[in-house]
Amino acid sequence: MSSTPVRVALLGAGTVGAAVARRLADRAEVFAGRVGAPLELTGIAVRDLGRPRDLSGVLPGLLTDDPGSLVDSADVVVEVMGGLQPARGLIERALAGGADVVTANKQLLAQHGVEIEALAEREGRSVAYEAAVVAAVPVMRTVRDALAGDEIRSISGIVNGSTNYVLDMVARLGVPFQDAVQQAGDRGYLEADPTEDLEGLDAAAKIVLLARAAWGVQVGMEDVQREGITGLTDADFEEARGTGQVIKLIASAWCSGPAADRRVEVAVRPTLVGAEHPFGLTREGTNLVIIDAESAGTLRLSGAGAGGDETASAVLGDLVNLARARVRAREAD
Amino acid sequence: MSSTPVRVALLGAGTVGAAVARRLADRAEVFAGRVGAPLELTGIAVRDLGRPRDLSGVLPGLLTDDPGSLVDSADVVVEVMGGLQPARGLIERALAGGADVVTANKQLLAQHGVEIEALAEREGRSVAYEAAVVAAVPVMRTVRDALAGDEIRSISGIVNGSTNYVLDMVARLGVPFQDAVQQAGDRGYLEADPTEDLEGLDAAAKIVLLARAAWGVQVGMEDVQREGITGLTDADFEEARGTGQVIKLIASAWCSGPAADRRVEVAVRPTLVGAEHPFGLTREGTNLVIIDAESAGTLRLSGAGAGGDETASAVLGDLVNLARARVRAREAD
Repeated sequence: MSSTPVRVALLGAGTVGAAVARRLADRAEVFAGRVGAPLELTGIAVRDLGRPRDLSGVLPGLLTDDPGSLVDSADVVVEVMGGLQPARGLIERALAGGADVVTANKQLLAQHGVEIEALAEREGRSVAYEAAVVAAVPVMRTVRDALAGDEIRSISGIVNGSTNYVLDMVARLGVPFQDAVQQAGDRGYLEADPTEDLEGLDAAAKIVLLARAAWGVQVGMEDVQREGITGLTDADFEEARGTGQVIKLIASAWCSGPAADRRVEVAVRPTLVGAEHPFGLTREGTNLVIIDAESAGTLRLSGAGAGGDETASAVLGDLVNLARARVRAREAD
Repeated sequence: MSSTPVRVALLGAGTVGAAVARRLADRAEVFAGRVGAPLELTGIAVRDLGRPRDLSGVLPGLLTDDPGSLVDSADVVVEVMGGLQPARGLIERALAGGADVVTANKQLLAQHGVEIEALAEREGRSVAYEAAVVAAVPVMRTVRDALAGDEIRSISGIVNGSTNYVLDMVARLGVPFQDAVQQAGDRGYLEADPTEDLEGLDAAAKIVLLARAAWGVQVGMEDVQREGITGLTDADFEEARGTGQVIKLIASAWCSGPAADRRVEVAVRPTLVGAEHPFGLTREGTNLVIIDAESAGTLRLSGAGAGGDETASAVLGDLVNLARARVRAREAD
């Protein structure tokens, strides 16, 4: 066990950031054991220092409104503030300064992930973002690492819990579609801007990240053949029911053509699936990703695809792995 | 891209070893791209040089019956020969000599994995063994890495495809139990020594490896509360059917007590599950592992848990990751 800590800067103290900070405080000893050195939370950057937050157990003096200085002194920067800027600038500053980065920011990665990963590569640093794609369900790790010796043929999934909740209420409980959307909003299951979920933008960002990791191609949001669920009517659900099927919002990516001239297609659309198919059986806010690979065959991964604690689990998993690698590299020197 | 290759020694050319060798030959360029340097297969150690093998595309000159010299000159040693010795000695020689190791040898790891991992730790090297536990279904990686920032509460799974095939034939097709065992043997679904599968030894080894990775405890084969399926009778299946349930061979591990005085229990036994439960719906040779963690909630991972290509996928995934880390460490020097 090294006594030199790994310095962790946290950017953002919303639901996920607060959960990460509390766990780091509660479980300092456990994390030190797993990493091989203490994880020292050096600060939590927030926009508004005065806003009330659930940070029980976390030292109040850690809050700061100066993210830049925090980033400059960190070994690992955890970005859970969301939005394009200042998140992007801070991540780039972190990488250029020799820090590794953990982020849950799927829209930033979908739009600028290629440049961010190229910068990390040049700097010899890592960017980890399991949390950006269906929270703690380890799909990024499976596509990037577990299947690194295989050829992925296709990825398809229910990757947005809010729309699945709506579609499941209509299909199983017979709630009229518009009422189901209303209820999901009332219960806080939809994003502040519900079009993110309902128009498939959230799902599109996730499938873009998975496709890039699977095939190393530069697909972007503009390449997604995208159709949300807002155009659906009760008649569509009625028709599905009549044929033993249900409507699910399926995000998919598949690869066609030879390796030398590979085409990757990416789509998000409402899709009819058999009620007994694993997609059909996926209830409420659960997410399910099905990966088909040449040698591994069909792998299925499911779990909660959202939530503060679930997302914090993925963030902390990435953090422990990056910190462990840093400690190991330090010891090898 | 570095031009200095990563030197790979392959121990064993059975179903898995031959599949690994063929992929390394077929896809040399793809692997070089992913690793950042060529993967050079320096040799394949076999017991009997004269035995016919399916090694199309692999240079015949690579075969050798001198595993020791091969190991001594390798950066990564891939052990897929099975058995306790000489596998153990060769793995220890590899680690002591500065190589990383990939192995699919679950019985060796279940019996001597603690010492092997301790040696790797002392030498600053890695032992990866995703392939030892349900082939390409990425359960080891999930328990070791993805959930490294979480607290796992329990793991349970259908982790032996052969027994699941037997149980599924009885439950769904009404085949008498003894006939189903016979048919599974005839079709090559059972190990050469069928007690490995039928008495739950194979499942026990897998759950031992998962429990160690989840909680860092030194459980062994002798700690497994183990009951195979050979004691089951047609009357048991009849009774299950009458209550809408099916019998599955479930391996499980759970943690009880506070962190300071943690007790881990490990069991393999025939268990009644609802026919509509995800375990009940697991057909033929499919495996399903359910992991329950404090923050991540319930994760489910499923896929084929055996097979030469499927196991090779996991072996190659580990190989690419270890090789990538070596290339990166080399560049940082």
